[in-house]
Amino acid sequence: MSTPWIDRYAQRTKRMTSSTIRELLKLTAQPDIISFAGGLPAPELFPIDEIKEAAETLLEQHGQQALQYSTTEGYPPLRDMIVRHMARYGIVVTIDDVLITSGSQQALDLIGKLLINPGDRVLTENPTYLGALQAFTMYGAEYVTVPNDDEGVMVGKLDEALRAGPKFMYLLPNFQNPSGVTISADRRNEIVKLSDHYGIPIIEDDPYGQLRYEGTHIKPLVVLDAECLECQHNGKYSGNVIYLSTFSKTLAPGLRLGWVVAPKEVIQRMVQAKQGTDLNSSTFDQMLAYEVGRGGFIDRHVQHIREVYGRRRNVMLEALEQAFPDPSLGVRWTRPQGGLFLWVMLPEWMDAAELFVEAVKEKVAFVPGVSFHPGGGGHNTMRLNFSYESDEGIKEGIARLGRVVTRQIDVRRKTA
Amino acid sequence: MSTPWIDRYAQRTKRMTSSTIRELLKLTAQPDIISFAGGLPAPELFPIDEIKEAAETLLEQHGQQALQYSTTEGYPPLRDMIVRHMARYGIVVTIDDVLITSGSQQALDLIGKLLINPGDRVLTENPTYLGALQAFTMYGAEYVTVPNDDEGVMVGKLDEALRAGPKFMYLLPNFQNPSGVTISADRRNEIVKLSDHYGIPIIEDDPYGQLRYEGTHIKPLVVLDAECLECQHNGKYSGNVIYLSTFSKTLAPGLRLGWVVAPKEVIQRMVQAKQGTDLNSSTFDQMLAYEVGRGGFIDRHVQHIREVYGRRRNVMLEALEQAFPDPSLGVRWTRPQGGLFLWVMLPEWMDAAELFVEAVKEKVAFVPGVSFHPGGGGHNTMRLNFSYESDEGIKEGIARLGRVVTRQIDVRRKTA
Repeated sequence: MSTPWIDRYAQRTKRMTSSTIRELLKLTAQPDIISFAGGLPAPELFPIDEIKEAAETLLEQHGQQALQYSTTEGYPPLRDMIVRHMARYGIVVTIDDVLITSGSQQALDLIGKLLINPGDRVLTENPTYLGALQAFTMYGAEYVTVPNDDEGVMVGKLDEALRAGPKFMYLLPNFQNPSGVTISADRRNEIVKLSDHYGIPIIEDDPYGQLRYEGTHIKPLVVLDAECLECQHNGKYSGNVIYLSTFSKTLAPGLRLGWVVAPKEVIQRMVQAKQGTDLNSSTFDQMLAYEVGRGGFIDRHVQHIREVYGRRRNVMLEALEQAFPDPSLGVRWTRPQGGLFLWVMLPEWMDAAELFVEAVKEKVAFVPGVSFHPGGGGHNTMRLNFSYESDEGIKEGIARLGRVVTRQIDVRRKTA
Repeated sequence: MSTPWIDRYAQRTKRMTSSTIRELLKLTAQPDIISFAGGLPAPELFPIDEIKEAAETLLEQHGQQALQYSTTEGYPPLRDMIVRHMARYGIVVTIDDVLITSGSQQALDLIGKLLINPGDRVLTENPTYLGALQAFTMYGAEYVTVPNDDEGVMVGKLDEALRAGPKFMYLLPNFQNPSGVTISADRRNEIVKLSDHYGIPIIEDDPYGQLRYEGTHIKPLVVLDAECLECQHNGKYSGNVIYLSTFSKTLAPGLRLGWVVAPKEVIQRMVQAKQGTDLNSSTFDQMLAYEVGRGGFIDRHVQHIREVYGRRRNVMLEALEQAFPDPSLGVRWTRPQGGLFLWVMLPEWMDAAELFVEAVKEKVAFVPGVSFHPGGGGHNTMRLNFSYESDEGIKEGIARLGRVVTRQIDVRRKTA
C-alpha cells in the first residue's frame, strides 16, 4: 500500500513525533522487567467489586439512559458530585462551571483547540508534563519556560517570562509530573498576582492533589485567585484560572473521566469545542463513576491509595539511599510529598538516555528526563514512578538501577 | 464573574456557533413533545441484559485490565473483531489498518486535526452531516459543495468541484444524514475514479451501512477503490479512502465507540493525533463491546434493529402519504432504503425554521434543513428521524406536522 497523499497532506504531523515515553514503553514491555517508566496507577487497588456492583445497579435502574447519547457538558449528578468535592478544597463553584472530559488529556486538547493559534507562546515549567506538550504542540504552540527547584516553579524568573507574552501559564502545582515537586504557598500567591497583573490566565493541572502523603494541604491557585484582594477589579472576580482534575488516579484511568472547573463563559466555549470533538464522554462511564462515588466511596478509597503509595514512596526513598552513589558524587533526587513520581538528577556529564539502554539490559526501566524539557536541558535527569511496582519490586529495581549508575561513575573515576 | 481574556483569546470560537440542532433540542425537551428532531437510536432496543452480563464477566475475568490505561490504537481483540466484520463486507484489512475512536465524531475531529490547515477546502455533499462541519470548521475548513439527488451526490458536478482543489471529499454513501439518500453503484464507481484521477482522497462515513431495510447492499467506496483497475498505479493499491463506522447505531451510543479503517500509514498518524487528544478511548467500554460482540451477538441484534426501524420507516412513509398535502402542491420526501432519517422538501416559498416554531406549538419537532447546507440553500427542507418514536408516536406526530404544513399552504392559497 502506498499513500502518497498522506505525506503531502498531513503537514501538521511534521510537528508531532510519537512520544518518547511511548516508544520506550514498547522496549519495556518484557514481562520480567521492573518498570518505573509508566505513570500507571496500581491495578491491584482498583475497586473492581464496587464497580461491578455499581454497573449492575446502573444497568438495572437506568440502563436506557446509560447507553444513550447525553449532553456534552456531562452527566449532571456527576458534575454536582464534583461541585461538592471541590467545595471541600475551598473551590466554590456551581454545576455550570464544571465540564466532564474524556480524561484530563482531553481538557488539555480542548484548551489547545480553544486558545492556541499557530505560533502562540505557552508558558510552562521546565520540566513539565509531556502529554500537555503533545496536546498544545498539535495546535502550533511555541514555549516559554521557567525552571523549577524544590519549591516548584522559580517565581523570580516568572516575571521576565511573562513579559514574552505567553497566551497562558500551564502549571502543575502539586507533586508535579515529572519532577514530584510542589509549588510553595508563597510562590502560589506570587503567581496569582502576576497572572492578574499581566492578564495572563493560568491552567492549573491537578491530577494528584488528593494524593498527599506528608505535609499539609496548600491552597490551589484557583482558590488563591478567588481570594486575592489585589486581584479584585471593581468588585469583580477575575476568573483567571482554568482548573483540571481527573478520576484516573482516584478511581480508574480506564474509564477516561476528568473534569474542568472554570468560569462558565469559558466552560461554554469548551463545550462548543467538545461537541465537534466527541459529542459527549461515555455516558455509561460517567454514570458508573457517579454510582460508585455518590455514597462517599471514592474518598474512603483515596485514603487506602494514599497509604499504599505513601509506603511505596518511602520504600523507594530508602532504597535510593542504600543503593545509589553517595550524594557527594553528584547524584540527587526529590522527596515528593505526594503523587506518583520522583525525580533523579545525575551529574552533568551523565546521559540518562544512555543509562536507560544499560538499565534495560539489567531489566529495570525509567523515563529519561529530556523529553519533559520544552526549554532544553535535562539530559542528566530521570523520572521514576513509584505507584505501580510492589515494595519488593521497588527495592529490587532500585538496587539494579543503583548498580548501573554506580558502574558508570566508577568507570568515569578510573578513566579520569 | 468576568473573564475578559476568554473573549480576547478564543478567536477560534468565533467560527463556532453552538449547533442549531443542539439549541433546538433544548426547545424540544418538553416531555409531551413528539420529536423527530434528534438522531437517537431507540433506547428500548438497547441490549441491557447482554451488556449487564458482559460487564459482570469482564470485571470478574479482566477487571484490572479493563480499568487501566490502554494503547491508543484500541483493544486488539476488538480491532480484530472489526477486521472480521469488515471482511464480510468485502473490506479486507489487518488489525494495523484499524483505529478505535471515541465515537465516529472523534474520527472526524482527528481527520480535521491531521489534514486541515486554516483555509483548506473540503468537498461535501449539500446537504451533509452537521457534526462533520462542526469538526472540520474548528480547524479552519472552507467548503466546496456538490448537491445530491435521489441517487446521491450528483457526479456530473463533481469534476468541476474537484478542480477547485479540495483537500478531500467527505461523503456518506449509505442512507445519508440528513437526506436519507444512497449513492448508486454507478456513481460510486465514478467517484472512485475521479478521486484517483485528481489524487484527492475520500472520507467515507458509514454509520448506518448495516441498517438497510430494502434493496441490495452496494459495495462501499473503500472496496471499489481497492477493486478499481484504472486506479492501480504500478501494481500498487492507492489507498485513497478513509472509512469510518461506529457501534453507536448497532450496540449503544453511550459507550462512544467508533472505528477508522485506512492504510496503516494513515492510521499511524491518526494514532499520534489521538494520543494528545485523549490517550485512549475508554478501556472498559472497548472491552465491554468486545465481550458483548465476540459470540456474534451484535449481528443477531442488528437484525432485530432492522425489523423495528424498517417498520417505523414504513409507518412514517404511510403517515406522510395520509397527512401531508398532495404532492401536486410541491411537498416531496425521500424514501430511504435504510438508516435513521427521511428528508422533506417543501415548496420554495416555505421556511422550515418558521414552520418549526409552529410545529413546536403543536408539540411536534424536527430539524430545519438549512444548517446542513454548507453550500447555502435548504431553507425549505426538514429532517425527520424515524428511529426514536414508537409507531403510534410517528403516526400522531406526522398527523400534527401535516396539519401545520397544510395550514400554511391553505393560508398562502387564500391570500394568493
